[in-house]
Amino acid sequence: MHPGGIPPAGAIPDSNIGRENPAFGSPVSGSGCSVNEKSVTNISYGDPVEQGSLGALITENSNNKPHHDRREQLYFNDGKRQIDFILAYNDDDPKKEQKRQRFIASLHEEGLMVEVEDASETNGGRVSFVKIHAPWEVCTRYAELMNMKMPIKEILIQALLNHDEQNDLAEDEESQQCLPKMPNPFEISEETLPEEPNYFTAAFNRERSNQFIIDDHETFFSHSQRTRIVYEVLSRARYDDSNKLRFGIIRMLDNDSYTAAFSLHEGSYSSEHSVITHGYENERRLLYELWAKPKAFYKQQPLDLIRKYYGEKVGIYFAWLGFYTIWLVPASLVGMVCFLYGCFTLYKNIPSNEICEPGGLGSTVMCPLCDQLCPFWELKSSCFYSRLTYLFDNPATVFFSIFMSLWGTLFLEFWKRKQHVIAWDWDVLEYEQEQESLRPQYEAQASHKKTNPITKLIEPYIPWWNKATRVLTSATTILFMLCVVLAAIFGVIVYRIVIVSVLYASDVALVRQNAKLTTTITAATLNLLVIILLSKIYRWLAIWLTNIECPRTQSDYEDSFTFKMFLFQFVNFYSSLFYIAFFKGRFVDYPADKEYVIFGYHMDQCDPAGCLIELCIQLGIIMVGKQFLNNFMELGLPFLMNFIRKKKSNISNESTKEQQASTRWEQDYVLAATPPLGLFDEYLEMVIQFGFVTLFVAAFPLAPLFALLNNVIEIRLDAFKYVTQLRRPLAARAQDIGAWYNILKALSILSVISNAFVIAYTSDFIPRLVYLYAYSGDEKKSVAGYINGSLSYFDVKDFLPTVAPDPNLEANKELNGTEICRYRGYNYPPGHPKQYHSTIQHWHIVAARFIFVVVFEHVVFFLTSTIAVFIPDEPGSVRDQILREKFLAKEALYAAELQKTKTKREDDDEETASAKELEGGGGGAGAEGLRYRPGT
Amino acid sequence: MHPGGIPPAGAIPDSNIGRENPAFGSPVSGSGCSVNEKSVTNISYGDPVEQGSLGALITENSNNKPHHDRREQLYFNDGKRQIDFILAYNDDDPKKEQKRQRFIASLHEEGLMVEVEDASETNGGRVSFVKIHAPWEVCTRYAELMNMKMPIKEILIQALLNHDEQNDLAEDEESQQCLPKMPNPFEISEETLPEEPNYFTAAFNRERSNQFIIDDHETFFSHSQRTRIVYEVLSRARYDDSNKLRFGIIRMLDNDSYTAAFSLHEGSYSSEHSVITHGYENERRLLYELWAKPKAFYKQQPLDLIRKYYGEKVGIYFAWLGFYTIWLVPASLVGMVCFLYGCFTLYKNIPSNEICEPGGLGSTVMCPLCDQLCPFWELKSSCFYSRLTYLFDNPATVFFSIFMSLWGTLFLEFWKRKQHVIAWDWDVLEYEQEQESLRPQYEAQASHKKTNPITKLIEPYIPWWNKATRVLTSATTILFMLCVVLAAIFGVIVYRIVIVSVLYASDVALVRQNAKLTTTITAATLNLLVIILLSKIYRWLAIWLTNIECPRTQSDYEDSFTFKMFLFQFVNFYSSLFYIAFFKGRFVDYPADKEYVIFGYHMDQCDPAGCLIELCIQLGIIMVGKQFLNNFMELGLPFLMNFIRKKKSNISNESTKEQQASTRWEQDYVLAATPPLGLFDEYLEMVIQFGFVTLFVAAFPLAPLFALLNNVIEIRLDAFKYVTQLRRPLAARAQDIGAWYNILKALSILSVISNAFVIAYTSDFIPRLVYLYAYSGDEKKSVAGYINGSLSYFDVKDFLPTVAPDPNLEANKELNGTEICRYRGYNYPPGHPKQYHSTIQHWHIVAARFIFVVVFEHVVFFLTSTIAVFIPDEPGSVRDQILREKFLAKEALYAAELQKTKTKREDDDEETASAKELEGGGGGAGAEGLRYRPGT
Repeated sequence: MHPGGIPPAGAIPDSNIGRENPAFGSPVSGSGCSVNEKSVTNISYGDPVEQGSLGALITENSNNKPHHDRREQLYFNDGKRQIDFILAYNDDDPKKEQKRQRFIASLHEEGLMVEVEDASETNGGRVSFVKIHAPWEVCTRYAELMNMKMPIKEILIQALLNHDEQNDLAEDEESQQCLPKMPNPFEISEETLPEEPNYFTAAFNRERSNQFIIDDHETFFSHSQRTRIVYEVLSRARYDDSNKLRFGIIRMLDNDSYTAAFSLHEGSYSSEHSVITHGYENERRLLYELWAKPKAFYKQQPLDLIRKYYGEKVGIYFAWLGFYTIWLVPASLVGMVCFLYGCFTLYKNIPSNEICEPGGLGSTVMCPLCDQLCPFWELKSSCFYSRLTYLFDNPATVFFSIFMSLWGTLFLEFWKRKQHVIAWDWDVLEYEQEQESLRPQYEAQASHKKTNPITKLIEPYIPWWNKATRVLTSATTILFMLCVVLAAIFGVIVYRIVIVSVLYASDVALVRQNAKLTTTITAATLNLLVIILLSKIYRWLAIWLTNIECPRTQSDYEDSFTFKMFLFQFVNFYSSLFYIAFFKGRFVDYPADKEYVIFGYHMDQCDPAGCLIELCIQLGIIMVGKQFLNNFMELGLPFLMNFIRKKKSNISNESTKEQQASTRWEQDYVLAATPPLGLFDEYLEMVIQFGFVTLFVAAFPLAPLFALLNNVIEIRLDAFKYVTQLRRPLAARAQDIGAWYNILKALSILSVISNAFVIAYTSDFIPRLVYLYAYSGDEKKSVAGYINGSLSYFDVKDFLPTVAPDPNLEANKELNGTEICRYRGYNYPPGHPKQYHSTIQHWHIVAARFIFVVVFEHVVFFLTSTIAVFIPDEPGSVRDQILREKFLAKEALYAAELQKTKTKREDDDEETASAKELEGGGGGAGAEGLRYRPGT
Repeated sequence: MHPGGIPPAGAIPDSNIGRENPAFGSPVSGSGCSVNEKSVTNISYGDPVEQGSLGALITENSNNKPHHDRREQLYFNDGKRQIDFILAYNDDDPKKEQKRQRFIASLHEEGLMVEVEDASETNGGRVSFVKIHAPWEVCTRYAELMNMKMPIKEILIQALLNHDEQNDLAEDEESQQCLPKMPNPFEISEETLPEEPNYFTAAFNRERSNQFIIDDHETFFSHSQRTRIVYEVLSRARYDDSNKLRFGIIRMLDNDSYTAAFSLHEGSYSSEHSVITHGYENERRLLYELWAKPKAFYKQQPLDLIRKYYGEKVGIYFAWLGFYTIWLVPASLVGMVCFLYGCFTLYKNIPSNEICEPGGLGSTVMCPLCDQLCPFWELKSSCFYSRLTYLFDNPATVFFSIFMSLWGTLFLEFWKRKQHVIAWDWDVLEYEQEQESLRPQYEAQASHKKTNPITKLIEPYIPWWNKATRVLTSATTILFMLCVVLAAIFGVIVYRIVIVSVLYASDVALVRQNAKLTTTITAATLNLLVIILLSKIYRWLAIWLTNIECPRTQSDYEDSFTFKMFLFQFVNFYSSLFYIAFFKGRFVDYPADKEYVIFGYHMDQCDPAGCLIELCIQLGIIMVGKQFLNNFMELGLPFLMNFIRKKKSNISNESTKEQQASTRWEQDYVLAATPPLGLFDEYLEMVIQFGFVTLFVAAFPLAPLFALLNNVIEIRLDAFKYVTQLRRPLAARAQDIGAWYNILKALSILSVISNAFVIAYTSDFIPRLVYLYAYSGDEKKSVAGYINGSLSYFDVKDFLPTVAPDPNLEANKELNGTEICRYRGYNYPPGHPKQYHSTIQHWHIVAARFIFVVVFEHVVFFLTSTIAVFIPDEPGSVRDQILREKFLAKEALYAAELQKTKTKREDDDEETASAKELEGGGGGAGAEGLRYRPGT
């Protein structure tokens, strides 16, 4: 905290001391300038007094309502030492008790303070709690060991800057390019969110502790820092001296010696006071008010506050989610425009007019769409489909596909930048994952011993033949499951064939008329249900399989699980779409074609209007249906349960467990634990959605809009879950979204290919173009006559007996005397020497389709890679700032050196001391600098 | 050097003390294990005594022939202080003299020692030299400031390891996977190359200097380290107090105050002693014997020695060149096999047999290949071309294209790994380019002032409108030059059309028969000459343009120059190939086609055997010709000049300048300076070659072989240049090959696309395949009849009068009565309702071609990106080693901490001291750790 920010400790009521931290959250893009630049340029070298008074204000605000009731007690029973961590257990097995005692002793050795709360009456007398507090000495020691970066006094920086430069800086960066501020309804009002003071940070060092801004030992380290420190001790504490490997809280949780280990929420998220203009009781409540409550749905997220409360890993997820949602806005708008273009030009479309208008091709007799049970039909009954198709299959779609390909690339490139800025802003740019310890399950199953190449300790390990068996089992099961998915899709295809036959065989004309649409919609819904069901089964299976595989470390475990889940969900969600887009009806050349027959039936075929509309319906139902079900499970179900519970509670006066609990830790204990795989499900859901938005966007330009609507709700749902439903997670650090970035990148590349093929193969864009330029006649280029040219002739006599429509059916009565029917395709008519073989136009179109794919892909990939090259990963302003920091550090070194050689040890005056201090830090890059240099 | 490595200083003759450095170079892949693993795993924890005796041996070896003659003097006149740098000047302009004096004074202030050698008689009395020596105090001060990593005593490491672990280590890594050693003729024998001792390094710190292995102040810092230290001082020394920006040796060189600044070679590279088994006189001579002399052409390069003598930047170039050359071996072999496959199946090829064998299609009358002057001809005269084409256009070519695409990716991926290993081995992994100073030329031309965002100093700068004018000028000129290149290619096309007509019009039958081949070969040679000429002109132009652009810093300058040069050379070298591969003869549909006529002539066409053979000839001539000319300029020309000079010197007894020079510095001064753009030309040449090897490999499978042959010579030529022809360059640091990696990557991607199109469009692979599977008749699939099917009919009556062959020509007499001639193409015959329009087969083939492109590209890119994902950038062993280093550092910290808290300050014993020392280094990551943390 800034000097003067906190009144002397005595002035603060005991009960709530130190709940305030120097850095209050603020949205990354808070006050008006452009989003990316803001968090970098908007640096203020404010007057210390001003900042001080601000600090005082905050402290006052937050301390004006101390909690004297035990329910919100965050301290040891002496009311002074704050609780940094809670361990819980609910048995008295003597073996476990022994481990716990040894464990607690280890904590004592390290200097942690512990207070045990025995099983209390209120909780049914079952759960005991261990409260842990990290005293100042432990905090500083571990902060130094863990290289924690803490704020340093400005005097150090001022020694490096001339006075006029400082003024320059302040003016420069405050006023730069900032337009007069517009009121922004999306912004969080500044009154509710206190400003964060500015400071330089440096790795903490006890010997130089006077250089750091330490006003109060209780507040110097933030809650998440204290938690991390305690967790570091916990994860190294020994619980059994007989074995080197028996240490750490993870193993203690795994062997059930403890049932839970968590840090406390800062209080209740709800309060009697509904207005928060004059302050707030705790950060959890602030998060609820500003972020998690439904009414805030249109507001920016208070990212800094989220990061402070939940750590960088959760913070970066919400930053990504918010960023993605904002980027969906332009995509939705352009998608809407393309759709509207389709709507407005709907009745100007010549091909569909030819089908629909009387005197056109409407009375053309078409061949049946399925075997035996389907009747001959007139082209005009395809009118509705034809109109509908045009909405999604018009020239604007091609433009939109290219647009979305570029959008995908730009989105990912700009996210990389944004991520870089956030990582820099949150000081995790140089954070690296440390060497991980083994998973306890791995140790338990490993029968062999080996030397770890890094620690050189003898470790248990699973030899490769054992490992291979495990992986093989897992791989086989996955393959089997993928086959199940494909079988399910095949099942739906069979359903389609059967149901369309049944509907056409119906005696009711209405049913017959809507047979196609009914089939498509019910089949898509069936598909969705199968997908959801398989997801649930597979999720359970994936965990089971990953456990069988028994990966070495937690991150191996997560990688393996992620790979399995993503592979499966990819196939599960997208394969029906791929089928419709590229395979459906592609193999049947002409109605009497003998190949590709299943169960005696021909494979199902699309309407003459094309498969695009079916793809569109399928995509719409699966995507929107999934989102709806998802949100219902997350949002609707709890409400419903609550409603039912309330109804019940009118009868019995039983209160909920949370209300029963009398202390903060008991309240938190009954909450759900953070899921072991963290944000996995949230990321997976969003990545699948990203796939829907990009992969088949040519077929469904409204996908981004539906995704946008979903995400606006999704953000608040996730926020609500984190604030109210879960225990406070350990503030984990992360500098990026990890493997998901590469998955998104792969999806965006795949989407270019997929869209190229959708336009070339699924839509009628290319055949229309070929007709227009090569076959429409020389004088006026127009698509008039295109439909007629795309229908080939078939002689009814050539039908195989098993395929020919049954003349006795009700539906067939009308057009029973047909001798020549027509079908979609470019084949020679009956009687031609090459009857039913492809015409020159067919090959011309095939060539054009593939030329389009080649051109489209090369152009788009060239554009996207050019864009990627020209957008640097690091914004210029951040790069300058980092270089400036390095420059300052180096200059300080050189200056100090030169002075030393010139003056040869004069008495230390204040300025030299500070310069020397910096130099002392600079000289030793030892911890990273120690390395082994091998020779020949 | 290892303890005991150097005898007490008194025992060493004064004159040559300290020329030996602790770490002698050794090839990265020296002794038997696999290339990549070796430098990592082959670590020996040798007995100190053994290493000591080795060190003593080296010292003895190198000191057994002290140079008492002044010609090899590397010391100040007192014979003790070694010369670390030389500055030279050859005028006595008082203004410059003033600057020099102020400059030298700055050096004195910093503590450097200076000795001036005034213009001597021997050198015509014109050049004076300033010798610079960095004393111990300066070296240590700057080593600390520059964070130099120096060897530390093993006792520190031993404190961290248990004793049995050390034994483990030694055994483990010495014996790991090493097969019994085979004698390797490519290896440098170990007798000549002394072994390098092993040690850990840490950032140097004067306060902890007792922890470092300092046996001798003269030898502790290596020559390149001393040079870098002096250069650091030189580049910051002020020469004029009136302006903050007037400092640095670069500006002093630029304003001609000094004419040269360089460090000295270690002696002469040639010697009377031709055998070097018992030692060597200096590292330069060692480099010459082991590396640069032509006889060593098959040996591995002594990379560590190169790196030590020339710095990491040069070292990494030669490492890359060697790596690339080795990778060319498998490519050459597979290319050879494909070529041989063509040779062996030559007479089994049905299409060319049909053309060549009597009774086949040989007597088919073909339409003339050019307008008016060309005669009708019989297909059998295409026999030779047809046979030749088959050599390069057979099924093996498709396989080879895929192979080379994968080869390119694998090569780049494995180079990335190798580069990582080298960077780690050479301790430059964490090296980062520092903020650069402005180029003096920029300052001179900049009229405006601005605050530098990093240093906050007021700097001159060129405002954007001025900059834009400069860039626009430059861009226009480049565009113009690109047009010149295209014009030159167009010129060659015209040459081709004209010459083929002239040759056909010849009365001599032999000339007429070889008309096509003569034209192709002379045109290609002409093309090569134009390319070489344009290269020379453009190089000069590019420098001029970059100077006009006036980039801010040296690396901006290099980037701008690289971009310009590469863009131009790419178009210059490859565009004629792209023309032949994809455009030549593509636009003329049938002989009477009225479109695409230039100067009244039809565009030139390929032989009916296809354009592939022309592409092959063109590629062969340009690539091999360029390499030949290049090597001739580098190798032959100096020899020729020497020969002429020797002839002359028999008459006048004038000796060369170098022989005249009486001191080392005078000898070095007359050598060429290192080119200002460093290794630019070498890299560019290799990258262009990489393009030849990959871009059109489908047309010329022997390209890798020729590249291999060239590179074996190239390595030794470059080595020879560096050892004997150039001044010793400043040992620059680098961790990779920079922008060239991305250029190579782009080329390898382009090569996949290019090869896909060459196979699909230039070769006959696809038409043959389509014929085989769709048009060859139902019973036996064979390409018999393919040639006949690929030739369309043309009615001679349909010739335009300007095109029809002149019946009066000698050549035309023979087949003058022809009524129907045939040409390559799939058009309907005359008389057909769609006469001369494309047949269905044409569109079928077009479709197949593009389907092939799509399939080929998707398969290859999928394979290459999968490979790229599965090859980690960092080999596992290096990753383990880096993690192990971090682990050791961290463990040392924790151990020291725990001990401290437990024992509460006992007396320091040795072990604690060392642990504490390490900890002291670890705590302060200050230099990097200082950073500014912005708030809202």
